[in-house]
Amino acid sequence: MMTATGKLYGIGVGPGDPELIPLKAVRILGGVDVVFAASSSKNTYSMAVDIARNHIPENTPIIKLPFPMTRDKIETEKAWRENAQTIIAHVSAGKQAAFITLGDPMTYSTYGYVLKSILAIRPDLPIETVPGITSYQACASRLNTPLVEGEESLLITSGVKGGDRLRNTSPRPENIVFLKAYRNAADISLALEESNMVDNSVGISCCSLPQEEIIRDIRAFKDRKPGYWTIIIAKQNP
Amino acid sequence: MMTATGKLYGIGVGPGDPELIPLKAVRILGGVDVVFAASSSKNTYSMAVDIARNHIPENTPIIKLPFPMTRDKIETEKAWRENAQTIIAHVSAGKQAAFITLGDPMTYSTYGYVLKSILAIRPDLPIETVPGITSYQACASRLNTPLVEGEESLLITSGVKGGDRLRNTSPRPENIVFLKAYRNAADISLALEESNMVDNSVGISCCSLPQEEIIRDIRAFKDRKPGYWTIIIAKQNP
Repeated sequence: MMTATGKLYGIGVGPGDPELIPLKAVRILGGVDVVFAASSSKNTYSMAVDIARNHIPENTPIIKLPFPMTRDKIETEKAWRENAQTIIAHVSAGKQAAFITLGDPMTYSTYGYVLKSILAIRPDLPIETVPGITSYQACASRLNTPLVEGEESLLITSGVKGGDRLRNTSPRPENIVFLKAYRNAADISLALEESNMVDNSVGISCCSLPQEEIIRDIRAFKDRKPGYWTIIIAKQNP
Repeated sequence: MMTATGKLYGIGVGPGDPELIPLKAVRILGGVDVVFAASSSKNTYSMAVDIARNHIPENTPIIKLPFPMTRDKIETEKAWRENAQTIIAHVSAGKQAAFITLGDPMTYSTYGYVLKSILAIRPDLPIETVPGITSYQACASRLNTPLVEGEESLLITSGVKGGDRLRNTSPRPENIVFLKAYRNAADISLALEESNMVDNSVGISCCSLPQEEIIRDIRAFKDRKPGYWTIIIAKQNP
């Protein structure tokens, strides 16, 4: 007799507003045997769990998988592998499992690394990924500002490299989203000024949360660093 | 006495799978007085209405707004303006109205143009946009392929300009999504070969529909044009 194999669902719970989770995620979360969520190795808080809380039945176990906040590659890869093994063990034992993650699971998500680690060990494991709404989409909707139109392009980029990603790209894309803008917001603002895009750029911090702030003149970032959850949406044309 | 003003909700119903609509869209569609959807001026079919059908109460009127499939700028702008006026008339009369659109309302959507036309006439009209999941997110999830990781960038581009958008961009972004790839799929495939990205590129047609096709070797596009609903996800690294 064959051993029943379970399935892993990678689920994006959206950018923060619990109502921005798709119906499919809600249905799956209501039926799985176990829910996995990434957490810092320092504590067990998970914003993804907070968002999805109402859709996870009370008796469904939630397992927090620790991911270290470190730049040490060996330590990071060890955590991916160990967490992948934990998930594989449950699914191989016949469990239906969900790994929940903020935003979209395929967009700058820990799930992408876990997925690769799992497939490296068990390329045959049944896995279904359910897409989710990203932070930058939520910000654009909040601002009523189209991200991209017609035959234009949109560059989504990490703000970690500051404004250089824009300075070094030729030609400039018509639309750019800088995620994780906070630490380098001043340099990004400068690069947008150099590119004559600053007047069509907007910053938004903590979109849809009570502490939300919309920064219409991002030159202000030269004098003050915005909060961690800050995105800049920049455009060549209004 | 003041006249009550309604509100317009711009709603993304997602990429096609009716389960990929967010809870918020479902709640709003259940409560509005009227639903607007774009249709070709040649017929009144709307895929967005098909997707959202089960969430629109039977007695809620659905108004199809005709948008001409033309490159004539004057005719196009006339249609935006007239459709904007129709929506404004309903909202000004106190109606709660939803404009539904495929994918995400801020990503290559007719809604973006309608929104601008409305705001040009009535900048004070209450408008709330609800983000949705895009086709390219659904494709990446279907393929279990991350779109973008770590400090990388992702370029989302229309395939209408073929491979030149890639040939002319320096440096190449780590990840590129070509939407509307069908007509220029051969040229996009060539440009990806020239950039040594073709081996990490995948084509997908009609994602999640019965006629879905995944094209692992997109060099095939040199010999045959894929279907209209084709996306290419290209990466520098596997």
